[in-house]
Amino acid sequence: MREQSKQDLYQKLSETFIKKVPFNQHIGLELGSVSKDKCELIIKMKPELIGNFHHGILHGGVIATTLDSVGGTMAAIGLLEKETRLEFDHVMQKLAKLGTIDMRVDYLLPGKGEKFRASARLLRVGNKVAVTRSEFHNEKGEILALGTATYLVG
Amino acid sequence: MREQSKQDLYQKLSETFIKKVPFNQHIGLELGSVSKDKCELIIKMKPELIGNFHHGILHGGVIATTLDSVGGTMAAIGLLEKETRLEFDHVMQKLAKLGTIDMRVDYLLPGKGEKFRASARLLRVGNKVAVTRSEFHNEKGEILALGTATYLVG
Amino acid sequence: MREQSKQDLYQKLSETFIKKVPFNQHIGLELGSVSKDKCELIIKMKPELIGNFHHGILHGGVIATTLDSVGGTMAAIGLLEKETRLEFDHVMQKLAKLGTIDMRVDYLLPGKGEKFRASARLLRVGNKVAVTRSEFHNEKGEILALGTATYLVG
Amino acid sequence: MREQSKQDLYQKLSETFIKKVPFNQHIGLELGSVSKDKCELIIKMKPELIGNFHHGILHGGVIATTLDSVGGTMAAIGLLEKETRLEFDHVMQKLAKLGTIDMRVDYLLPGKGEKFRASARLLRVGNKVAVTRSEFHNEKGEILALGTATYLVG
Repeated sequence: MREQSKQDLYQKLSETFIKKVPFNQHIGLELGSVSKDKCELIIKMKPELIGNFHHGILHGGVIATTLDSVGGTMAAIGLLEKETRLEFDHVMQKLAKLGTIDMRVDYLLPGKGEKFRASARLLRVGNKVAVTRSEFHNEKGEILALGTATYLVG
Repeated sequence: MREQSKQDLYQKLSETFIKKVPFNQHIGLELGSVSKDKCELIIKMKPELIGNFHHGILHGGVIATTLDSVGGTMAAIGLLEKETRLEFDHVMQKLAKLGTIDMRVDYLLPGKGEKFRASARLLRVGNKVAVTRSEFHNEKGEILALGTATYLVG
Repeated sequence: MREQSKQDLYQKLSETFIKKVPFNQHIGLELGSVSKDKCELIIKMKPELIGNFHHGILHGGVIATTLDSVGGTMAAIGLLEKETRLEFDHVMQKLAKLGTIDMRVDYLLPGKGEKFRASARLLRVGNKVAVTRSEFHNEKGEILALGTATYLVG
Repeated sequence: MREQSKQDLYQKLSETFIKKVPFNQHIGLELGSVSKDKCELIIKMKPELIGNFHHGILHGGVIATTLDSVGGTMAAIGLLEKETRLEFDHVMQKLAKLGTIDMRVDYLLPGKGEKFRASARLLRVGNKVAVTRSEFHNEKGEILALGTATYLVG
């Protein structure tokens, strides 16, 4: 498959992952950029996402949700990089089985900011599992949290 | 302090933790029961909490948020068990500093069900950190996910 | 297969896992008991296993090694519970592929004691991964550490 | 304190951490380089460190031990960077309280190689806890495993 077609597929797939998932919509997750090496999501601060009423900072659960989603999207792309049949329907069927096995989140700084960006990279992708590392930044570029997650991809 | 007063304080504190946190309200977290040994939260399935559009199951981020919240509430109670000054305002000031350092979530089964229950127990509580283990069940009593989290309490 | 034969196989398998692994021998791991529900290993304090020279306590790496080994043995047994062909050679070939994907260890108390016991239980066992939880006790029954690990079993 | 003196202190401290810890000696851990930004340890393959008797690869417990040690040494250095009193005895007394709270290890590739190198960086260092990320490479530069760990430093 040509590189451009692949890139289009990744874009379409990622949009589906983000837009068709009700909870991602509920919190306002948006797709940033996507490539075979890196996936990026965006989320903007809103009053309903606040976790600490004293300090007006983002809830850790929003961060965990975002890191899980960006890692899962990256795992899906990693899986497709190894796939030869890249028709959209075949691909979506395969990805329906993708699921998070486990995730670790490290909270490094309070979730202060207006616009947040989460990115993920692949550490490993095999026939059965994929492992990703992800980061959660605010608009100042401060790393607020880090994720490591294992996904079932088979 | 008398045991009954303590129990009242834990109840009041947990309600504050759940009801005053905007994101917990946004997803519909409710307080179940609370004691010095165990804390329990409840969350009901709603369309906006769905994660997998093929199977209609709960988003992993909802599970992570609930496990983080139940563990944090348990850590707060563990901290108070060691505290001698138990006036509500003093206690809330102290708890304002409580925060999650890191969390691991293991997803064991797909999030199928109508009414979910998360419970947490303390593994360790010191002057600086508390460690909790938590479980996430559906109404059939199936364990869907497990959490282990470390909180800063000092 | 009869239950007794299965139990014999698990015992033989676990002994192989512990005795034929050079590093397990290097630190002195011994097999305790083994069944389809629980696996138990034993390790005795020795000067070369000390981690903190101020307090004479067990090195965290010894604990991590033991928890990884007991969890892996339990995952192997879980895999065999689902297997119909239980000849020793076939089984060993299958288990040669078993490997740890990730592990979390929580250190709850300093590693004080003379004789330690690690036990593991299965949380999940599928066609591709198994998840285990494990505990590390001293001879007083104090829980010194907890492990959660994911293994590739396919 | 002058930068050179600090560097000397870190070197001396790290050597103490590695050489005075019996279990680190038992497995053959050696100090690589150390600075305020990064700490590196070295370990050579030896028959007694083997974990998988089929493939002659390093035991996951050796990797976990090395990652815990390199992360702990880095946490110690991070703590000292914030300290004004840098006499060796005062520093060692303070560091005697340092301990691992929890650690996650991700095993990415089988532990094949002759000479391994583990490095750690600080993600966060506060008054109570430090968080580090670490990597484990073989002599070909392949990343075999990754660690994330939280240490009590207060």
